[in-house]
Amino acid sequence: MAQLKQERAEQTRRTLLLAAAEVFDESGYAGASITRILKRAGVTAGALYFHFGSKEGLAKAVMVEQGEHLELPGGPDGLQRLVYITLYLARQLQVDPVLRGGVRLAVEQGEFGLQDDEAYQGWIQVFDEQLLAARSHGELAHDALVDEVSWLLVGSFTGMQLFSQITTHRADLPARIRMLWRYLLPSVASPQIKRSIVIDDAPSAEQSA
Amino acid sequence: MAQLKQERAEQTRRTLLLAAAEVFDESGYAGASITRILKRAGVTAGALYFHFGSKEGLAKAVMVEQGEHLELPGGPDGLQRLVYITLYLARQLQVDPVLRGGVRLAVEQGEFGLQDDEAYQGWIQVFDEQLLAARSHGELAHDALVDEVSWLLVGSFTGMQLFSQITTHRADLPARIRMLWRYLLPSVASPQIKRSIVIDDAPSAEQSA
Repeated sequence: MAQLKQERAEQTRRTLLLAAAEVFDESGYAGASITRILKRAGVTAGALYFHFGSKEGLAKAVMVEQGEHLELPGGPDGLQRLVYITLYLARQLQVDPVLRGGVRLAVEQGEFGLQDDEAYQGWIQVFDEQLLAARSHGELAHDALVDEVSWLLVGSFTGMQLFSQITTHRADLPARIRMLWRYLLPSVASPQIKRSIVIDDAPSAEQSA
Repeated sequence: MAQLKQERAEQTRRTLLLAAAEVFDESGYAGASITRILKRAGVTAGALYFHFGSKEGLAKAVMVEQGEHLELPGGPDGLQRLVYITLYLARQLQVDPVLRGGVRLAVEQGEFGLQDDEAYQGWIQVFDEQLLAARSHGELAHDALVDEVSWLLVGSFTGMQLFSQITTHRADLPARIRMLWRYLLPSVASPQIKRSIVIDDAPSAEQSA
């Protein structure tokens, strides 16, 4: 019984998070009324305050958990997987309301009084993991530093998706991220691996199986 | 007489723009009350509506005119001047309220219902000018394209200054922009010029005189 209750509570929390992400993505923080989020989720105000405490708490959760539901492309860790992950994120930003809502709040958070880098640091960790594997496999150029490259990727990606959003509603984002890699790879990849990195989407599961 | 009147009007407009940029930089769009802007500027509400029409009109002007007062580093057009300009912007973002206010609004504009790329396109033009000169002087790598590099710089710079703002109040921004150039230059600069580009602030006017 207790477990069933907990599962239901977890389900309600996910429903709320998804509804909130959608509304934040459409209308930003100020434009997202609690009434609209509750109506979209089909839950009570009590559930929102129980799980998130406040609208700001809900927004923080959307920001920080923006990537937790994603199924990042698999394959061996390293530079190739890192390229696949960034291109996957570019495509998800075109269609995934939770990621879009979280990224929008992370970018616009100054407007509702936050200065919270947790969402950014989450991506730094994801990228670091691939870069450390790349380093240990001899895939990184001698003077490319893991900390620098992951910072550069998170910073550049953040601005590029914003610029792409403002100019083309992110229609050109995958092409822009491929472009970023074309310019960065000569400095980041070791001479041995440079030519073998594919700057494109990961092969689909069927193809790679 | 008519000219004096026009000069006074222009002065009032500048005073308002500066005061608004300061308040937007401190508090964002929603947090910047018209009352506070008028008090800071020491002008009447009538002047604000005469020059800008509305708070949104004022915000648009701050966004679009964010760089018009800047004295960009001089010197011959080309890749070196482009590097100097980006490092100058990194330093100005630490101290210049008009640039800071304009950039903040351009990043957070979604929160107040805008999707306006004019401020971004202004920087594209500035960067294009230097890259076209670089191209005509043989300073660009064979496969570096002017349109791509300027887009990449504007997109990356936008996100890097935001990430730097959230993590260090932009204390590390100049170092981050130097880092960006270290990684980009091998793909952007022609082999002939690569080693001669100085990735640092422009020499001061006294030094270069």
